[in-house]
Amino acid sequence: MDDIPRDSNKDSIWLLESNIDDTTGEALGFTMEKLLKQGAKDVFFTPIFMKKNRPAYQLSILCKEDQVNNMESIIFQNTTTIGIRKVKMNRTILERQKRRINTIYGPVQVKICKFKDREYIYPEYEEIKRICNETGLDFQRIYNEIKKQ
Amino acid sequence: MDDIPRDSNKDSIWLLESNIDDTTGEALGFTMEKLLKQGAKDVFFTPIFMKKNRPAYQLSILCKEDQVNNMESIIFQNTTTIGIRKVKMNRTILERQKRRINTIYGPVQVKICKFKDREYIYPEYEEIKRICNETGLDFQRIYNEIKKQ
Amino acid sequence: MDDIPRDSNKDSIWLLESNIDDTTGEALGFTMEKLLKQGAKDVFFTPIFMKKNRPAYQLSILCKEDQVNNMESIIFQNTTTIGIRKVKMNRTILERQKRRINTIYGPVQVKICKFKDREYIYPEYEEIKRICNETGLDFQRIYNEIKKQ
Amino acid sequence: MDDIPRDSNKDSIWLLESNIDDTTGEALGFTMEKLLKQGAKDVFFTPIFMKKNRPAYQLSILCKEDQVNNMESIIFQNTTTIGIRKVKMNRTILERQKRRINTIYGPVQVKICKFKDREYIYPEYEEIKRICNETGLDFQRIYNEIKKQ
Amino acid sequence: MDDIPRDSNKDSIWLLESNIDDTTGEALGFTMEKLLKQGAKDVFFTPIFMKKNRPAYQLSILCKEDQVNNMESIIFQNTTTIGIRKVKMNRTILERQKRRINTIYGPVQVKICKFKDREYIYPEYEEIKRICNETGLDFQRIYNEIKKQ
Amino acid sequence: MDDIPRDSNKDSIWLLESNIDDTTGEALGFTMEKLLKQGAKDVFFTPIFMKKNRPAYQLSILCKEDQVNNMESIIFQNTTTIGIRKVKMNRTILERQKRRINTIYGPVQVKICKFKDREYIYPEYEEIKRICNETGLDFQRIYNEIKKQ
Repeated sequence: MDDIPRDSNKDSIWLLESNIDDTTGEALGFTMEKLLKQGAKDVFFTPIFMKKNRPAYQLSILCKEDQVNNMESIIFQNTTTIGIRKVKMNRTILERQKRRINTIYGPVQVKICKFKDREYIYPEYEEIKRICNETGLDFQRIYNEIKKQ
Repeated sequence: MDDIPRDSNKDSIWLLESNIDDTTGEALGFTMEKLLKQGAKDVFFTPIFMKKNRPAYQLSILCKEDQVNNMESIIFQNTTTIGIRKVKMNRTILERQKRRINTIYGPVQVKICKFKDREYIYPEYEEIKRICNETGLDFQRIYNEIKKQ
Repeated sequence: MDDIPRDSNKDSIWLLESNIDDTTGEALGFTMEKLLKQGAKDVFFTPIFMKKNRPAYQLSILCKEDQVNNMESIIFQNTTTIGIRKVKMNRTILERQKRRINTIYGPVQVKICKFKDREYIYPEYEEIKRICNETGLDFQRIYNEIKKQ
Repeated sequence: MDDIPRDSNKDSIWLLESNIDDTTGEALGFTMEKLLKQGAKDVFFTPIFMKKNRPAYQLSILCKEDQVNNMESIIFQNTTTIGIRKVKMNRTILERQKRRINTIYGPVQVKICKFKDREYIYPEYEEIKRICNETGLDFQRIYNEIKKQ
Repeated sequence: MDDIPRDSNKDSIWLLESNIDDTTGEALGFTMEKLLKQGAKDVFFTPIFMKKNRPAYQLSILCKEDQVNNMESIIFQNTTTIGIRKVKMNRTILERQKRRINTIYGPVQVKICKFKDREYIYPEYEEIKRICNETGLDFQRIYNEIKKQ
Repeated sequence: MDDIPRDSNKDSIWLLESNIDDTTGEALGFTMEKLLKQGAKDVFFTPIFMKKNRPAYQLSILCKEDQVNNMESIIFQNTTTIGIRKVKMNRTILERQKRRINTIYGPVQVKICKFKDREYIYPEYEEIKRICNETGLDFQRIYNEIKKQ
């Protein structure tokens, strides 16, 4: 596994998972926001079907090793779960830089990733949203205009 | 729409739907059982994603017109929903008969449907389960053995 | 369908649906916010699986009849969909009132629904969130404390 | 509902639905292909959770009124379902034209939709796929290059 | 990872997973029950979309190391899967005790968890269900009444 | 973990996962096909719900260790993801053989698995599909006929 692709980095990340069938969707949405504010790299819900005909959700969190305890505390305090399982995973991430580019909407922040011989430009979501609100134009148009530059 | 396939019947059915983000999976499982006991033709949950990052479930019920009010009462009393939407749908159903057939496991009840020139035999789930429990054999084996007869 | 439950009202609502396999999740999240700001009663996404191995989402909107055209414009402008289907549904909704009640956290707004002989009290989500942020306490605790009053 | 947006058309479409818990995923994939070959406008699967802890799928078909009977026959013959429900829905679709445009990869077929004062250009999926296979380049690059033209 | 939260325990658990596209929902529901009866800590289904347009389910089992072989046997015998993958995960679980408390419905068993400076009380599902059946009252009411004590 | 069931083998497999909220379903379907052509053992999508109300999909790939780098390159080039996480999992797989058997439709290839004292026969999907196309008969009939032999 040592021959990682050029322009990418290798690190590790913890995946925390908990199956939740006795917390409401409202409380789960609140918990997601709290986990993200406290530094979780990513938080997501997966629909699952549990015993006794219970439609439920799996709460998943990606975080660094030194955040695991803090994340667990937030989960135990804001949901009714009593168990969290976790595993350390390898990760490959592309090198990325934030850069400001000039567009017809003024300067816009984008994320630039390199992989092998190519550069990929991803407009930042919050920037597109800001321009949509300022101009009244639609998401697709702004996104495509910025990518063209 | 009058030229319905031979061997099938045409009737109508009500579909009731409610988006639920503030009831737990436990309570939803309980509500499903209650709706079925009270005569719902079918009850099912569909995972949906609602505003404010809320993972939720849509509760759907199929029932006859004279059951609609009763179903609505059960939903309002056992979940936290405050609105139920519904639509009357056309339905095509195959004629089916229950019949007892002889198998190596003794007499077994099956459902027989006719469509065009063919008969389809579906072993009843509860019968397969009973035989699995009595014999210790597995689901696939019993299911296939019965279908062969 | 005339014998509706006491304490509930009967009206109608339009359900708009569109299957979307060529718009990103980012753009869909943006579109949801826009639809809600423009007055949609509810907006939600359902995971679906389409032809050619395409994992996709169904966008669903509930709105009043006089909002249908406006909702359609937003969808056509912010997603890549080229078709929207819709159906008018009956709806039963509980009568509800907003009321301020006194709690150990000060006055709190709740929603009160009546159904048959009972009153159901639902704390408003934004109120719980506000108290969580002010007190640093967790969602479950605040929610349960308010329900007790 | 008569004041439809400019550049869009109004027609109607049938939605057929069936909950399937006793057919395998393999057979469902086969059935989807068959329905599409026979002229279904769209076919998709939605994960649903049914009684007795059964993870299942809802099969949905969109088709014209004169196709309904044929679609039902295919479903009854290739799955184990014994009931299909359906509803006629209104539909708004954008006017679209297929046009060949010149790109750095040669002539490419695209779909052009008009809505209000704008033209939207959607590269045809099969064209992108063909160019990916011919050039060895990746999907995102081809898609974006064509949109730029 | 050694500084685990107070009042919680650290152990490990095996997660077994299998993607299943050629077993019916009926057989999967049966298999879930069998796995739980044989001592699985948890069993759940996740909707997944596989190649060749196959809507499918991932079967997941959480169990102790000495149960892994038995669980695998049940899966191989009751489904059509031919491969099971698995990983050992760390787990944090809250200390919990079962306790009988007095309520207006008589003595009721609850689960009490401690985390940091707080006690969390979770009514047992089977107890709520029993009281619902005995009294004819609804799930939400019983659940909330017991939590209040 | 050494006492593996008879007739099964033990090896290991890598699971690669990536959460994707800024790639379209079209591009994901294309990527799945590419990954399978390049030797992935399995590729599947799981619906997940991410922050900022984004309905998304988790892309999962099962592959051998020497394929990991190649799979990562395909993902980085065809989707907009910038991070892939992965974990090595143990795996138990049944011994299987391909065998041609004679049926009323001529020779047909099947997969035969042994587990404990039993042989399980699974008709190959592509064979069933071929026979359906040749004979015009339906999937269920062909599948069951072949299993009977």
